[in-house]
Amino acid sequence: MIYLDNAATTLQKPPCVGQAVLDALAHGGNPGRGAHEPTLHAARLVYHAREALATLLHAESPDCIAFAANVTQALNTALSGLVRPGDHVITTVCEHNSVLRPLYRLREQGAQVSFVEVDDAGQLRYDQFERLLRPNTRFVAVTHASNVTGNLTDLAFVSAFAKKHGLALIVDAAQTAGARPIDVQALGADVLCFTGHKALLGPQGTGGLYVRPGLAVRPLVVGGSGIHSFDEVHPSQMPTALEAGTLNVPGLAGLGAGVEWLLSQDVEALHKKELALTYLFYERIVHAPGVKVYGSFAEADRAPIVSLNFGEEDAARAADILWEDYKLCVRAGAHCAPLIHKALGTAEQGMVRFSFSHQNTEAEVFEAAEAVCQLAEEL
Amino acid sequence: MIYLDNAATTLQKPPCVGQAVLDALAHGGNPGRGAHEPTLHAARLVYHAREALATLLHAESPDCIAFAANVTQALNTALSGLVRPGDHVITTVCEHNSVLRPLYRLREQGAQVSFVEVDDAGQLRYDQFERLLRPNTRFVAVTHASNVTGNLTDLAFVSAFAKKHGLALIVDAAQTAGARPIDVQALGADVLCFTGHKALLGPQGTGGLYVRPGLAVRPLVVGGSGIHSFDEVHPSQMPTALEAGTLNVPGLAGLGAGVEWLLSQDVEALHKKELALTYLFYERIVHAPGVKVYGSFAEADRAPIVSLNFGEEDAARAADILWEDYKLCVRAGAHCAPLIHKALGTAEQGMVRFSFSHQNTEAEVFEAAEAVCQLAEEL
Repeated sequence: MIYLDNAATTLQKPPCVGQAVLDALAHGGNPGRGAHEPTLHAARLVYHAREALATLLHAESPDCIAFAANVTQALNTALSGLVRPGDHVITTVCEHNSVLRPLYRLREQGAQVSFVEVDDAGQLRYDQFERLLRPNTRFVAVTHASNVTGNLTDLAFVSAFAKKHGLALIVDAAQTAGARPIDVQALGADVLCFTGHKALLGPQGTGGLYVRPGLAVRPLVVGGSGIHSFDEVHPSQMPTALEAGTLNVPGLAGLGAGVEWLLSQDVEALHKKELALTYLFYERIVHAPGVKVYGSFAEADRAPIVSLNFGEEDAARAADILWEDYKLCVRAGAHCAPLIHKALGTAEQGMVRFSFSHQNTEAEVFEAAEAVCQLAEEL
Repeated sequence: MIYLDNAATTLQKPPCVGQAVLDALAHGGNPGRGAHEPTLHAARLVYHAREALATLLHAESPDCIAFAANVTQALNTALSGLVRPGDHVITTVCEHNSVLRPLYRLREQGAQVSFVEVDDAGQLRYDQFERLLRPNTRFVAVTHASNVTGNLTDLAFVSAFAKKHGLALIVDAAQTAGARPIDVQALGADVLCFTGHKALLGPQGTGGLYVRPGLAVRPLVVGGSGIHSFDEVHPSQMPTALEAGTLNVPGLAGLGAGVEWLLSQDVEALHKKELALTYLFYERIVHAPGVKVYGSFAEADRAPIVSLNFGEEDAARAADILWEDYKLCVRAGAHCAPLIHKALGTAEQGMVRFSFSHQNTEAEVFEAAEAVCQLAEEL
């Protein structure tokens, strides 16, 4: 079996991740007001994860990091907690439904949403940002990398645009947090949402958001906070403001271990390894008969994703064959990002997505590329 | 160390729980559209947890169970997803902030909320339900057991009241799911919210809600659903309707294992053991000098909680001493349930809460009771 579905979830975690999860499960109480050892241990594990993420993302402090169940909850929190009726949001057709559906819902409640389009290679048409600007534009919500094409967003451009017009920048880093160096301060991100179970190497059930100091995000979920229990309103200080109820302590312990492992490595070096594997695969399959590759490979940098189709063959059927006959784990379909499929003409067909990790080897890439070439001959 | 903070989180899980978490972490992909083995394995683990919970709670089908990060998110989902401006909700002063704060927020948005009060023993004044009824009353939201006093709510009474007036019944089963037999259909619950990490013996980061078939709850979080990706609106069929983004597969695998373990035992027998330990402790400490016990112990049944104070001593200080000098893990403070503390006059002092599990032993109970009696002499 060759696992090439890392954009959905990374499967091979460093051993320290599972150990941290088990330790928390065995020894962690419920962090909060209690003062006994299990509760303090749990609180320390959570703080450690917060601190590790703040370090990795170059946040101002660990308090800028609030945890959530996944990046979807983090994005819902950010969008619903910032955008008000009458606000205009500029976003892109590259977004995942975790951005689109909250925005559609906000649009029903009186917000306005505009979409930056893409060219044939799925690259954003950056000239459209200025043209979409309205007097009531307040936010730019963009993915850092398309989970379908792997194309990167030029965040320096988008951030400069946002700064120029006084807009808040909300970044979906589901595909990039942990996969490449990110400096939220240098980037000028107001909010950056991440998931724990992809390149951050943590368990599923973890994620969260960086919130720039001074920016108040209204909570999506309110409830027990451990502090200020007699106030009717959920506390407003970060990170408690965006964390209600019992946190996923075992998951966050694992996430902390995963991020700690990343920090002990060189994220840039891991990224270069993934990139090399990605281009190696690309070069071996791009000329296979009938294979159509999506996204732009002209640039030196991208997310480690290669999405393709075999002629007119249904992507789901091709992915099934790749699993049944070649034991390749890839993902087919719309990848929950409908607008980019509409833009690239693959709404019906879907795409077969290969996504790589630094845990993959060149031998695996060769074998996967060979399978694609063989299947291309057959289909 | 004696762990008596089980109402906050159970610490000793059956070994199968940790094993299930580790297995999912090592072999589980991202459940969803993919057809390769890791993704199918993950989907099976989630379905197994859903099925086990449906069996335990006597739900009509596994599809009635939607997962959430914790009971707080489940309660927010249920309340925000059902109550509309203009609706009147009857609730109680026994509720946790996970019920109160969502209701306060809904009140700001135009809903109305009334509170059933308690007597000196913290028992609900059931005669008030009828009196609080208004023409626009639509919901009754009650906890199954107070997390502060351990008093049970007479759900048969409340359910009959709700049925009589055509109200939907929303139950917070944070303290009871897994701790005692629950039959949602016999109970007539429209929604029952549970947490995974307490008596269900699963990991933190898990929880969810039972939703009666035919009842549509608007989702709190929307996004990737794996199905109907081209629809702008999140799918409406359960359980997908209330689950967006990647689920906590390792956590749910652990929860499934915990519930499976409960099903292999006799929940009623485990409950009786907890109850026996609770009353054993109560009888040994109730006459200690200066010790004041809260809640009603006249009934034969309750949640396995004994909350008390030492004279006028601050509860947090007493709990600290119990940990430092006696290695007892208990919890002090308001327990995120402010109204019951106001009702019982302990808003300033808090309470020291002892909460038991079937994993505790009689010897532990004797030792804990002895510690309370000793401390009572000293303070």
